[in-house]
Amino acid sequence: MEWSLSSLTYNGSISEAIHQPSSISTKLSFFSQNPSPILYRYNPNKPFFKTSISCSLHQHQHQRSRPEYVPGRISDPNYVRIFDTTLRDGEQSPGATLTSKEKLNIARQLAKLKVDIIEAGFPAASKDDFEAVKTIAKEVGNVVDEDGYVPVICGLSRCNEKDIKTVWEAVKYAKRPRIHTFIATSDIHLEYKLRKTKQEVIEIARSMVKFAWSFCHDVEFSPEDAARSDREFLYEILGEVIKAGASTLNIPDTVGITMPSEFGKLIADIKANTPGIENVIISTHCQNDLGLSTANTIAGAVAGARQLEVTINGIGERAGNASLEEVVMAVKCRGDHALGGLYTGINTRHIVMASKMVEDYTGLYVQPHKAIVGANAFAHESGIHQDGMLKHKGTYEIISPEDIGLERSNEAGIVLGKLSGRHALKDRLKELGYELDDEQLGIIFWRFKAVAETKKRITDADLIALVSDEVFQPELVWKLLDMQVTCGTLGLSTATVKLIGADGEEHVACAVGTGPVDSAYKAVDLIVKEPVTLLEYSMNAVTEGIDAIATTRVLIRGDNNPTSTHAVTGETVQRTFSGAGAGMDIVVSSVKAYIRALNKMLGFKDQLQTKTSKERATVSA
Amino acid sequence: MEWSLSSLTYNGSISEAIHQPSSISTKLSFFSQNPSPILYRYNPNKPFFKTSISCSLHQHQHQRSRPEYVPGRISDPNYVRIFDTTLRDGEQSPGATLTSKEKLNIARQLAKLKVDIIEAGFPAASKDDFEAVKTIAKEVGNVVDEDGYVPVICGLSRCNEKDIKTVWEAVKYAKRPRIHTFIATSDIHLEYKLRKTKQEVIEIARSMVKFAWSFCHDVEFSPEDAARSDREFLYEILGEVIKAGASTLNIPDTVGITMPSEFGKLIADIKANTPGIENVIISTHCQNDLGLSTANTIAGAVAGARQLEVTINGIGERAGNASLEEVVMAVKCRGDHALGGLYTGINTRHIVMASKMVEDYTGLYVQPHKAIVGANAFAHESGIHQDGMLKHKGTYEIISPEDIGLERSNEAGIVLGKLSGRHALKDRLKELGYELDDEQLGIIFWRFKAVAETKKRITDADLIALVSDEVFQPELVWKLLDMQVTCGTLGLSTATVKLIGADGEEHVACAVGTGPVDSAYKAVDLIVKEPVTLLEYSMNAVTEGIDAIATTRVLIRGDNNPTSTHAVTGETVQRTFSGAGAGMDIVVSSVKAYIRALNKMLGFKDQLQTKTSKERATVSA
Repeated sequence: MEWSLSSLTYNGSISEAIHQPSSISTKLSFFSQNPSPILYRYNPNKPFFKTSISCSLHQHQHQRSRPEYVPGRISDPNYVRIFDTTLRDGEQSPGATLTSKEKLNIARQLAKLKVDIIEAGFPAASKDDFEAVKTIAKEVGNVVDEDGYVPVICGLSRCNEKDIKTVWEAVKYAKRPRIHTFIATSDIHLEYKLRKTKQEVIEIARSMVKFAWSFCHDVEFSPEDAARSDREFLYEILGEVIKAGASTLNIPDTVGITMPSEFGKLIADIKANTPGIENVIISTHCQNDLGLSTANTIAGAVAGARQLEVTINGIGERAGNASLEEVVMAVKCRGDHALGGLYTGINTRHIVMASKMVEDYTGLYVQPHKAIVGANAFAHESGIHQDGMLKHKGTYEIISPEDIGLERSNEAGIVLGKLSGRHALKDRLKELGYELDDEQLGIIFWRFKAVAETKKRITDADLIALVSDEVFQPELVWKLLDMQVTCGTLGLSTATVKLIGADGEEHVACAVGTGPVDSAYKAVDLIVKEPVTLLEYSMNAVTEGIDAIATTRVLIRGDNNPTSTHAVTGETVQRTFSGAGAGMDIVVSSVKAYIRALNKMLGFKDQLQTKTSKERATVSA
Repeated sequence: MEWSLSSLTYNGSISEAIHQPSSISTKLSFFSQNPSPILYRYNPNKPFFKTSISCSLHQHQHQRSRPEYVPGRISDPNYVRIFDTTLRDGEQSPGATLTSKEKLNIARQLAKLKVDIIEAGFPAASKDDFEAVKTIAKEVGNVVDEDGYVPVICGLSRCNEKDIKTVWEAVKYAKRPRIHTFIATSDIHLEYKLRKTKQEVIEIARSMVKFAWSFCHDVEFSPEDAARSDREFLYEILGEVIKAGASTLNIPDTVGITMPSEFGKLIADIKANTPGIENVIISTHCQNDLGLSTANTIAGAVAGARQLEVTINGIGERAGNASLEEVVMAVKCRGDHALGGLYTGINTRHIVMASKMVEDYTGLYVQPHKAIVGANAFAHESGIHQDGMLKHKGTYEIISPEDIGLERSNEAGIVLGKLSGRHALKDRLKELGYELDDEQLGIIFWRFKAVAETKKRITDADLIALVSDEVFQPELVWKLLDMQVTCGTLGLSTATVKLIGADGEEHVACAVGTGPVDSAYKAVDLIVKEPVTLLEYSMNAVTEGIDAIATTRVLIRGDNNPTSTHAVTGETVQRTFSGAGAGMDIVVSSVKAYIRALNKMLGFKDQLQTKTSKERATVSA
């Protein structure tokens, strides 16, 4: 038996998230989001390990229900809320800019994971950010499943009336809206960033939490850089915002400087010394600058935090945040044995699909040795005699791949080829977690046939690349019709491209460049006439074999670029845009990726320039 | 002021590591390894932060010297040894196979970092592995610097006489050799892997440590899967191996299952209950399956471990190991304030170059949000008004990039272009940490001029890509002379390649494929006639701009593949080989990468098949 590097396929379910057009009434799909919840259902007929020396999930046979949502209180003292900030903190990573459509798809995936709170964005950043949060509040924040689960939709605001009102105008459409406001409390931030005294900061925090509470009785407050803040000052400001109406107090280690023991003590100290703390939920938010964010988050939970702020794949500025998959799997694996019985409500089987989606949309790929979701996390060097490992998986494997939605393809059995029909393709895609509508299936089938003409065996990874190429894409402005390239060691690479614009008109241009991609991009530039800088260019053949389908990704920044306001620093930042393209010809897929990045940028820009800012004008009053 | 994604450059020094031919007597270069050591020299004229609320390294102005090396004892109770196992545990990651030359270069870089112990490999794995450890023992294990530093060279062995003797035959050439032997001690491993009783395992461990001690008075013993082992059994077996001569006891969390508090308690318990423990050094070895390896390692140190096993970039099987850079920087930043004064002897300014070298050689790229060494670790979303962050770096940055050998290129000032001469190129490369000999400089200069013909501004990243393309390469078997390709949306991609073989003969072939790379690889296959499977194909344009120099990487496995023995599972594994190529034409660089991966594989194979196994026969007796 032999395992290859590419032998893992996805088993999540992404269908509804992608294919529910935003125009459909949310009421119609009220109960359709998760027809067969598997949360907490342990199947004793499919045991992962026979021994008792492994993760607790394998012995954990009783179901635990999710306590009813009340902002400042959790009926079960062991239940830990998961607050996902992929769409806010994660999206502000360099190059990770997401379109509204992408944000909506991720929010739907987060709802499948059943995260308790989705921080959907920082609405004051730009009109586009505002619209994205509003759409998520409407579309995702109203889908209640049969167990009564619906995610809280949260927006971030600085401590000022305009930001707070903007958040409210965006999140108010959700069944469970939340306003999250923050102000820095460390000496270094007070001195260099805010230039305010402690008393001034307390007064701002108190009055702004009160202001937020006037709209919404679910208010979260964060003292930024709490880990470096004066302890007594922290107790005081936290006590004041509790009196003003905050029901969740989030304690960030903004610069990722604490050791787990220190961070645990910080949470314990706050719990012991803050007046009124018994009426609120303490939350953690740990940056990863020293590689300790997961450990700090767990230390916080053990010390009494009952909300943990995380992102998918641990993305975020600099070294990112605590990652949802690591925190959730650590709690799931070790909650009973080592963490006093803590548990979360996350449906871990959707982790891999969420990870894949966030990688695809943000362009922030995870390293092969990333815990839980890395390509090697469950792979072993291909062995001739793998029996040693396989005769007892628990010898070296503490988590079953199936637990996070991975399926070993050598167990799947189906191999698609030239003669496979539309039905076989549809079935396999469904097993991989994709439920496509007829139109989408038609496109994929056409691409599938084209690939099958030249490739004997179509792998699951090929299929995923095709779906990703066709389904996860921005609105069309420019489209590639045809191209041809000659290149080689003699130099003088020449490319000709034919594009069709939004107006239906065809344009042809040719250019000479330093390589096939350079010449083709120059030809595209001659047509699109939009000055941009290429910041990053990368490619991954996700599939095995020399005739693989390669996925290319580019990251661009336009010279007349859309800007937005950075949540934490308050600065104006230039957005960057990524685009991906997949195909068997890497030059063609490179051009597709470039055109898509351009489309993403043009779409963003277009919204800013052409939409009336009526709503914004209202909320900014 | 604007920062771009690519605005960080390397400031390490890699020169001697690469350019010292192995034939030169080590005595000649005895004192040349580090002419100007900067270890622990804090420069008060270049303060990083003005505030006291940041990492301790910024206030740490006194020098601490490295205690003299004695196997089982450290004179300063706060000194923590760093044991790097990149070449052993890291190299057994899927696809990370290194050639002997690459291993030697990495070992030299590890010596620049001043790691205390280099685990150079598992000599019993294959003839090639044996030779690599022997070469490192000879070449790196004898270079003593002016402070008396020379790394211990260690080899891993299973608990049998043949393995141990093989290690000794490889490491004995070092000034400070060490034999590391291990046997599993957890119930699950005893039952399913070893099929032995506890008493049998104790007897094996005791006698094999004694056997190792008969060769070498620096013996390390690891009870594999210690974290899941019966505590009383652990104390007993550890007590026995201490009596038999072990001076370092390494405690692995083999499956990465422990929480930091548990792992700390494990170390504390061992320290409190093992007879004779006061005469040995306790070590940690933490896998990263739940993302907690760094935290566990630090918890172990706080509990009394004084050797920490780590790898560069945290590579290793599955989710890898604790990473050197995270552990070392956490100790450096927080040792005084939060870890009771712990410190290491690592020269952190060589971290970035070590990280880059290991990425290049293993093909295991780190994610952009990897702590310390990720591309985004010090990057911020490009801002129009970055003053907020810049007016006080400490607001959001706890480590200075310069501390790990990074230099912000906008501070460097030099921009190379078409008119730059050989001297300017040499100087800039030196600033980037590369000291090239005349022949190498000549090749790079020629490539540099070719790029400058078509590109106005040559960035530091361009230079690094060129050096990497020319210097970090395997021995030549096949070489690309010329190629030409036509491709496009019409299909029928056609490639013609001309290669020259080791025999000096030229070969030309053409082929049709599904894309330009596929057709070119098929043409190469027609000439090389070595059946291989392409496992992975990826590309990174490290430089900014559409006319960037792209680096392509491929990973292959041959059908008649060299095999080796896996250290931990004892299984025969098929090696996989990576190759990289850089250039402005991605199709050309893809072909170069493929040919290099083939050369690497053919080189490995060749050694196995053609070298006489005289030495091995001796040690296997």
